Amino acid sequence: MNLLNNTITNINPLDTKAMQQAKERLNSLTKPVGSLGIIEQIAIQLAGIQGSVDIDVSKKAVLVCAADHGVVEEGISVFNQETTRLMVKNFLIGGAAINALSRVSEAKVVVADIGVNGPLFEHPNMINLRVKDGTDNFTQGPAMTREEAVASLEAGITMAQQQVDSGSKVLATGEMGIGNTTASSAIIAAVSGLSPEIVTGRGTGIDDKELAVKHQVVAKALAVNNPNQVDGLDILAKVGGLEIGAMAGMIIGGASLKVPVVIDGFISSAAALLAYKIAPACREYIIASHLSEEPGHQLMLEMLDLEPMLHLNMRLGEGTGAVMAFPILEAAEKVMKEMITFEELAKH
Amino acid sequence: MNLLNNTITNINPLDTKAMQQAKERLNSLTKPVGSLGIIEQIAIQLAGIQGSVDIDVSKKAVLVCAADHGVVEEGISVFNQETTRLMVKNFLIGGAAINALSRVSEAKVVVADIGVNGPLFEHPNMINLRVKDGTDNFTQGPAMTREEAVASLEAGITMAQQQVDSGSKVLATGEMGIGNTTASSAIIAAVSGLSPEIVTGRGTGIDDKELAVKHQVVAKALAVNNPNQVDGLDILAKVGGLEIGAMAGMIIGGASLKVPVVIDGFISSAAALLAYKIAPACREYIIASHLSEEPGHQLMLEMLDLEPMLHLNMRLGEGTGAVMAFPILEAAEKVMKEMITFEELAKH
Repeated sequence: MNLLNNTITNINPLDTKAMQQAKERLNSLTKPVGSLGIIEQIAIQLAGIQGSVDIDVSKKAVLVCAADHGVVEEGISVFNQETTRLMVKNFLIGGAAINALSRVSEAKVVVADIGVNGPLFEHPNMINLRVKDGTDNFTQGPAMTREEAVASLEAGITMAQQQVDSGSKVLATGEMGIGNTTASSAIIAAVSGLSPEIVTGRGTGIDDKELAVKHQVVAKALAVNNPNQVDGLDILAKVGGLEIGAMAGMIIGGASLKVPVVIDGFISSAAALLAYKIAPACREYIIASHLSEEPGHQLMLEMLDLEPMLHLNMRLGEGTGAVMAFPILEAAEKVMKEMITFEELAKH
Repeated sequence: MNLLNNTITNINPLDTKAMQQAKERLNSLTKPVGSLGIIEQIAIQLAGIQGSVDIDVSKKAVLVCAADHGVVEEGISVFNQETTRLMVKNFLIGGAAINALSRVSEAKVVVADIGVNGPLFEHPNMINLRVKDGTDNFTQGPAMTREEAVASLEAGITMAQQQVDSGSKVLATGEMGIGNTTASSAIIAAVSGLSPEIVTGRGTGIDDKELAVKHQVVAKALAVNNPNQVDGLDILAKVGGLEIGAMAGMIIGGASLKVPVVIDGFISSAAALLAYKIAPACREYIIASHLSEEPGHQLMLEMLDLEPMLHLNMRLGEGTGAVMAFPILEAAEKVMKEMITFEELAKH
C-alpha cells in the first residue's frame, strides 16, 4: 500500500510553461494555425508531460498484462480459459497480432503474468508478477481481496518503473484475459450507474443468447458485491481483474514518472477509469488511441474526456489499438523538430 | 486524350481469388475472426489490387501536386496566391508538414508543378508538368479548356507511371494550391447537386464574412459555367483545378497499374470524386485516410462509399492525412506475413 500511496502523491500537474512554448512553436510553423489538429494537441500534451518542447518518443513499449477470470465458468466467452495461457505463449514467441503491429513503430512488447492459472511461465522475457491464480468468480463474491487489488496495482507501478528505467519514453497498455470484457462491463456499470445492457458488448464474438447471459452475469456481479461507486479500489477488488489492476497501476506509475501512457480499447479504458477514480491527477498523462467496437467504449472515453484518433473497428485487445497510435506520437515529435517556421522559409 | 482513354481501358476489377485467399489466411490467424477490423479489410483489398496474398507496401510515395487558382482574386482565402509558390519551395527543401510526417513511414515526397504562377522552378527534385500558369477565375468563365483538363489528368497518369516504374508499391495524393478548397466545394456541389452552403467550409481558416463570400463565389461559379453533372471532365474544366486534375489522373493511373492510391482530405477527395466519374472502375483502388474538418468531406466519402480511418481534426492538405494512414497499411502487411495460425501455435 505504501508503494501505491507514494506513487499517487508523486503525480504532478503538467508543465504549463512547456505547453505554452510548444503552442507558440506550433503557431510559428509553415502551416495554418491549428491545422494539424490532434497531432498538435498531442505535441502540446507531450511537452507538458515531459516538461520540455524537445519532446521525445523514440523508445516505446507496450506492456501486455495477462490474467484469468473466475467468472469464465458462467459461460460468457466463446474462448475457454486455457486460451489466456496459449496466447501468452504466442506473445512470448512473437506470433500474435500485438507482436506484428508493434513492429510497425519498432515498439517493444513486454509480457507480464499478473494472474494466469497454472504453473509459472519459464521464459527469459516473461515478467512474473503473479498476484494470484486468476480471480474468483465475482457472481459468487468479490473477484479478489482489497489487498490483492492493491498488489495488482503495485505490479503495474513496478512494470512502469522497470520500463522507464530501461529507457522507454512512452508506455502503452495491453492485456490478455479470457473473460475480461465482462469484468470491464461490470466496472463501467459500477462507475457510471448505467445498466448492464448499455455497457456490455459481444467481446470476442458471442451470439445473442450468450449476450443475454453476459448481461445477467454483470447484473448479478453488481447485486452480489454492491461495489462503492466512489471507491475505485473497491470496484477493482469486487468486480475487476488482476490485469485490469496492473494496467491501472501502469497509468498511475507512468504519470508519477512523467511518462505518457497510451491506452488501448475497452478493457484498457476500464483500467483508465479506475486509475482516474483512484488518482485523478493521472488523467492528463493518458492518450486515447482507437475507438473499439464494444458499445461501452465510447461512454468510458467520454467519462474520461478523451477522444479516440483511430476508427478501425477493432475489437482485439492485447494493446493492438494503442500501438497503432504510436506513429501519431512520432508525427507530433517530427512536427516539433523538423518543420521550419515562416521566418526560416523566407530566408531560403 | 489517347493516354487518358488507354489508361481508363486498362483498369481491371480486383483479383477476387487473391482476396478470398487473404480472407482465409486472416481467419486462420491467432485472433478472433474479423477482430482487426479495417486492418483486415485493407489486407484483403491490397491482395485484390496486387493480385497476391503476399502483399507488399514496402515503398511508398506521396505525390504533391501544386497549382494556382484564378478565383483567388475573389478574396476566398486568408493566404495570398504567392503562398502556393512559397510552400512548393518549402516542400523541396523539406521543411513542410508533409516532409516531417512522411518521414514517420519513410515515404518519398514527390513534388510536381501542374500549374503554379510565375517562372518554372529550377530544382533537381521538381517534376515539371505545368499545364498552364494557374486556372482562370471560374466566376467569369471556365477554369480551363477541356483540353487543358485532359492534360492535367494525363500529367497525373504520367506521375503515377514514373513512381511505379521507380518501385513505389503505394501512392498517396497530396496538393498545394491557394484557393483549392473553393474549387473542391464547387466540384462536390456540381456532382451532388447540394447547395454551396452545405459543401463549403473555412479552408485554411476564413471568418464568417469571408465564408459568406466563398458561398457566393461557389454559387456564381456554378451559375456561370453550368457544369454537366454526369461529365467529370466537364466539371473539372469548368470549376476544377490543375492539381485536382493531376490527382484524379494519379488515381486513374494507379488503378491501371494495380497500385493502391491513398487519398488525403477534402481536395484529394474532390479529385477522387472526379476520377470515379471519369473512370468508375478506379474506385476499388482507393483507400481513404482521414476525416477532414471541412464539412463537405464526409459527404464526398459517403458518395464514394469510403470510410476514413483517422479522426485527427486535420485541415492542412499537402497529403498529410494520407501519409498518416501508411502505418496502417504496413500493419496490414505485417499481420498477413508475421502472425501465426492457431495450428502453428499448437505445435510450439
